[in-house]
Amino acid sequence: MNQHDRLHRKELLDAQESLASTLRKCLKIQQGGKLRSPQQTLNDRRAKSLQIAVDLIEERLKGIR
Amino acid sequence: MNQHDRLHRKELLDAQESLASTLRKCLKIQQGGKLRSPQQTLNDRRAKSLQIAVDLIEERLKGIR
Repeated sequence: MNQHDRLHRKELLDAQESLASTLRKCLKIQQGGKLRSPQQTLNDRRAKSLQIAVDLIEERLKGIR
Repeated sequence: MNQHDRLHRKELLDAQESLASTLRKCLKIQQGGKLRSPQQTLNDRRAKSLQIAVDLIEERLKGIR
């Protein structure tokens, strides 16, 4: 792994951790079931998007491992 | 573009839009400059992560265009 990849990998890992943390919050809110419909839709959409982001980063990390 | 790619593309576009919207909120908060240090760090980290996510989705979309 060269210097460039190492830096890039660290950035991706940090981003993944941060997005996964936000995702966990969204899922917790989903489980709480206290949101009204429009907020619930927004939260559901956000959770789905964050999951896709976490997955794409995972895939990218595999490529530079 | 086949059916699978079309569905996948729509999902990615939706995710990108949702993450970009959250990113804009983070940047607005940054510009407001009203956060205290720990919250500021968290918000900065989140903005950086969201930007990476938006970029990765963009790259993926280019691959299936």
